[in-house]
Amino acid sequence: MTQPTTALLTDRYELTMLDAALRSGVGHRKAVFEIFTRSLPKGRSYGMVAGTGRALEAIGSFRFGRDELDWLSRNNIVSPEARQYLADYRFTGDVWGFGEGEVYFADSPVLTVEAPFVDAVILETVLLSIYNYDCAVASAVTRMVDAADGRAIYEGGARRAHEQAAVAAARAAYVAGATSTSNLEAGRRYAMPTIGTIGHAFVLAHGSDEAAFAAQHELLGPNTVFLVDTFDIASGIRAAVELTDGQLTAIRIDSGDLATEAFKARALLDELGAEQAGIIVSGDLDEWSIATLASAPIDGYLVGTSLVTGSGFPTASMVYKPVAMEDADGNLRPVSKRSTGKTTTGGRKAVFRRSGGGNSDGTDTAGRGGNDTARSAGPIDEVVIEHDTPIHEVSGSGRPMQHHLMTDGKLAEAAKSDLEQARLRATEARAELSESQRSVPPTKR
Amino acid sequence: MTQPTTALLTDRYELTMLDAALRSGVGHRKAVFEIFTRSLPKGRSYGMVAGTGRALEAIGSFRFGRDELDWLSRNNIVSPEARQYLADYRFTGDVWGFGEGEVYFADSPVLTVEAPFVDAVILETVLLSIYNYDCAVASAVTRMVDAADGRAIYEGGARRAHEQAAVAAARAAYVAGATSTSNLEAGRRYAMPTIGTIGHAFVLAHGSDEAAFAAQHELLGPNTVFLVDTFDIASGIRAAVELTDGQLTAIRIDSGDLATEAFKARALLDELGAEQAGIIVSGDLDEWSIATLASAPIDGYLVGTSLVTGSGFPTASMVYKPVAMEDADGNLRPVSKRSTGKTTTGGRKAVFRRSGGGNSDGTDTAGRGGNDTARSAGPIDEVVIEHDTPIHEVSGSGRPMQHHLMTDGKLAEAAKSDLEQARLRATEARAELSESQRSVPPTKR
Repeated sequence: MTQPTTALLTDRYELTMLDAALRSGVGHRKAVFEIFTRSLPKGRSYGMVAGTGRALEAIGSFRFGRDELDWLSRNNIVSPEARQYLADYRFTGDVWGFGEGEVYFADSPVLTVEAPFVDAVILETVLLSIYNYDCAVASAVTRMVDAADGRAIYEGGARRAHEQAAVAAARAAYVAGATSTSNLEAGRRYAMPTIGTIGHAFVLAHGSDEAAFAAQHELLGPNTVFLVDTFDIASGIRAAVELTDGQLTAIRIDSGDLATEAFKARALLDELGAEQAGIIVSGDLDEWSIATLASAPIDGYLVGTSLVTGSGFPTASMVYKPVAMEDADGNLRPVSKRSTGKTTTGGRKAVFRRSGGGNSDGTDTAGRGGNDTARSAGPIDEVVIEHDTPIHEVSGSGRPMQHHLMTDGKLAEAAKSDLEQARLRATEARAELSESQRSVPPTKR
Repeated sequence: MTQPTTALLTDRYELTMLDAALRSGVGHRKAVFEIFTRSLPKGRSYGMVAGTGRALEAIGSFRFGRDELDWLSRNNIVSPEARQYLADYRFTGDVWGFGEGEVYFADSPVLTVEAPFVDAVILETVLLSIYNYDCAVASAVTRMVDAADGRAIYEGGARRAHEQAAVAAARAAYVAGATSTSNLEAGRRYAMPTIGTIGHAFVLAHGSDEAAFAAQHELLGPNTVFLVDTFDIASGIRAAVELTDGQLTAIRIDSGDLATEAFKARALLDELGAEQAGIIVSGDLDEWSIATLASAPIDGYLVGTSLVTGSGFPTASMVYKPVAMEDADGNLRPVSKRSTGKTTTGGRKAVFRRSGGGNSDGTDTAGRGGNDTARSAGPIDEVVIEHDTPIHEVSGSGRPMQHHLMTDGKLAEAAKSDLEQARLRATEARAELSESQRSVPPTKR
C-alpha cells in the first residue's frame, strides 16, 4: 500500500451489514450494485462524470491494516469473525463504468460493481463520496463551459472548499473543460497546469498599484495579469499599461458590475494602445452570471465558490443500490425496494448510446426503464438493456457506455485513461448534445 | 513532520506574492490578517466557529520538503531565492482566535494572524479552506440543534461529500452539537462516538424484513435500530416487534411523508406494546424540515446531505484580509481596500462580548465598526476595539473572544482545547442568544 488506506472512509453500518451477512450466509452471494442519480438538478439537462480514476484508486487502497482492525475491535464495531474477514479483504470483483468526461442522465448507471454482497456493500460510502463530489463539480463546470462559449474558465475555488475536496474539485473541473487551476497540490498530484499572479493583499502591502505592479513586473515581466481594482480600476489600468509600455498580457477585475467594468476597461485599454491585453473577471461567478456576461468584452473567467460547490448543487445526488442478487440456488435475480418515492428498478443494466436518434430536447430523461428501453435525451438515445450476462458480453446498438474497469479486482486496460483523454471525451460528449441542452439561461430557473 | 505537509494546499498566487514581496522588501514587514465573513447567509442570525483545531494543525504542518520544492522549481513557480526561503519556512508568528463552538456574526474576526507579510500571506488558502468548510457545517448543525429542540441529531452525510471533507464535517457537526457520526474515520481520528446498523441493501439481500431483522438481531440483539421501510412500514414494524418481543430500541423511517409516517408508526408501536421504542427519521432533512417535524413523535434525526453541504450554504464565505501592515518606518498602520462592494475596514481588532446588553434581535449585525464600536446582536453586544497593542494585552469590558492560540509559532495553552470542551462552549454560546435568533421557520426564507 503506497496510498493511505481508504478503509475507514466508510459508514459504520456497512461493517455491521458485513458482519451480520457473513453470519446469515447471504454475505458470499454475488451482488450487483449500481451508482446512479434518480434525477438531475432543476434546470440541468445533463450531468458530467468525473471521479472514476479516484474511485478506482480508492478501491485499490481499501485495505484494513493492523491499526484499523485494532480500532474496530477496541470499539466493538465488528465481531472477531468479521475482523478476520476484513484483515484478508481486498476487492476481487468486477467494475464497469462510464468514462470520465462522459455525459450522464437520470438513471444512467455510471458505475456498476459486481462482487460478493459483503465485498460490494462496504465500498458504498467511499465510492459515493467520490462520485457525488466530483460529478457535482464536473456537472457545474461543463455548464460554465457551455455558458462561456469558447472563453477560458480558470479554476480558483480552493479557499471555499475543504482543503482536500479542493484538490478533487480542480481535477474534476479540468476533466470538464476548465483550462487550469490555482491549486498547487492539484497541479502536482494530477500534472495539471496552474495559474496565479497576485492578490489584493499584495497591493495593500505595497500601498499603491504602482509599487505593487512594479514588484510584480520585476518578477514576472509584462507577461502577467494585473489585478487593477484594489483602489480604482481606471487608475489601476493606467498604472499597469504605463509600467509595461502597453505590453501587459491581461488585467483582472474582481469587483463591481463586471459587465459594465469590462466595457469600460476594454475602452480604456484600447485608448491607451493596449489592444492585445485581455480582460479576466472574477467574483462570485456561476454558470448563470457567465451566461449574462456573454456579450461583454471578457476573455476569461476565474471561478471560485460556485465551482467547488457545484453551482447550487453541491452533491450529485448519486446513490449506490443493489439491482441484482444471487438467490439461494445461485441464480442472479433482480432486486428492488418499494420505499415511497425511492423505488428502484432491479436488474443489471448495459447501456448503449446512439447520437442523432432523439426527437425531444426535454430537460430530463424518462424514468428507469424496463427491458431494452430507449430513453431519449435530446439528440441522444440511451438504450438500456437488462440482462443476465456480464456487461461486456452484451451486444447492443450504439456506443457501449460502460468500460470494463476492473476484472477480478485488477485494473483493466480501460481504467488507464488519463485526464487529457477525459477532457477530450468531455468535448466530444458535449458536442453530441443539442443546442437547447447546452444553453444556459442568464438567471437560475 | 508526522502529518503530511499542507504546504501545497495553496493557491499559486500566494507563492508569487511571496516571491515578489521578498524582492520588493515589503515581505518582511509585519502584517495582521483577519478571517471574517462580510455577511451571514440569508435567514441566519449567527454562525458557529469550527475548524480552529484543524487550522492550527495545518499551520504546524505547513513545511516545504524536498519533493514540494523540486516540483515548484521544475514548474518555474518560484525563483531560486523564494525556494530557499520556503525551504527554511516554518510559521513563527502569532495567532489569536475565537474558540471552537463560539457563535460569530458578520465581521467577527474569528482568526487573527500576525507575522511577516510573506509568512502570513501564504497561509491564506489552507486556512480559508478549513474555516469555510468547517464553519459552514457547524453553522448548519447548530441551526438543526435549534430546530430539534432537544432531540438528537445524528450525522450521516459522508456519502454526499468529498471523502475527506466528510471526516471534517463529522468533527464540525460534533462541535456544534450532533451526538454522533456514521463515519468511522471521524470516529478514529477524533475519538467521536459512531453509530450505524443496517441499510436497505441488507434487507434486499435477505429478501424480506423478517430474514434481515433476524440476521441483524443475531448480531446485535434487540438493542438496535430496525430500518422498517424497505417494503412496507407497518409490516416492517410488526416484524421488528415480533422478533424482539417488543424490546427493540428504535425503528428508522427513511422515506415517505415523515410526519405522517411517524404518527402512524408511534400508534402502531404503542398498540403492539413497544412504547419504549424510539422513532428515528432520515431522508433529505435540513434545519427547516426538522423544524416542520417538531410536533411529530420523533426521537432523533439522521441528517446527511444538508449537513455536509451547509444546509444550502456550503461555504461560510470567510475571507482572509490584511487589516494592518508595518510601514517603512516600522509603524503598524491600518490598511483597507476600496473595491466596490468589498471594502474592508482596516485596523487590528480586539473583541469582547457582553451578554444581556442588547436591545435588538435583528438577524444581522451592524457593519464593521470604527474605533471602539459595540455591535448589538440580539442580547449580545460584541465590542470591537481597534488598537495598536497585541490583542491579549488589550483590556475591554466583557468576555474576551480571542484566545492567544500561537505565540512565536508555538501552540499556546489555549490551543489545547478538545472537542468535548468545544461542544460545551457551543451549548453555552447558544444559550446566550435570544429565542428569535434561535428560532427556525418551517420553510426556508
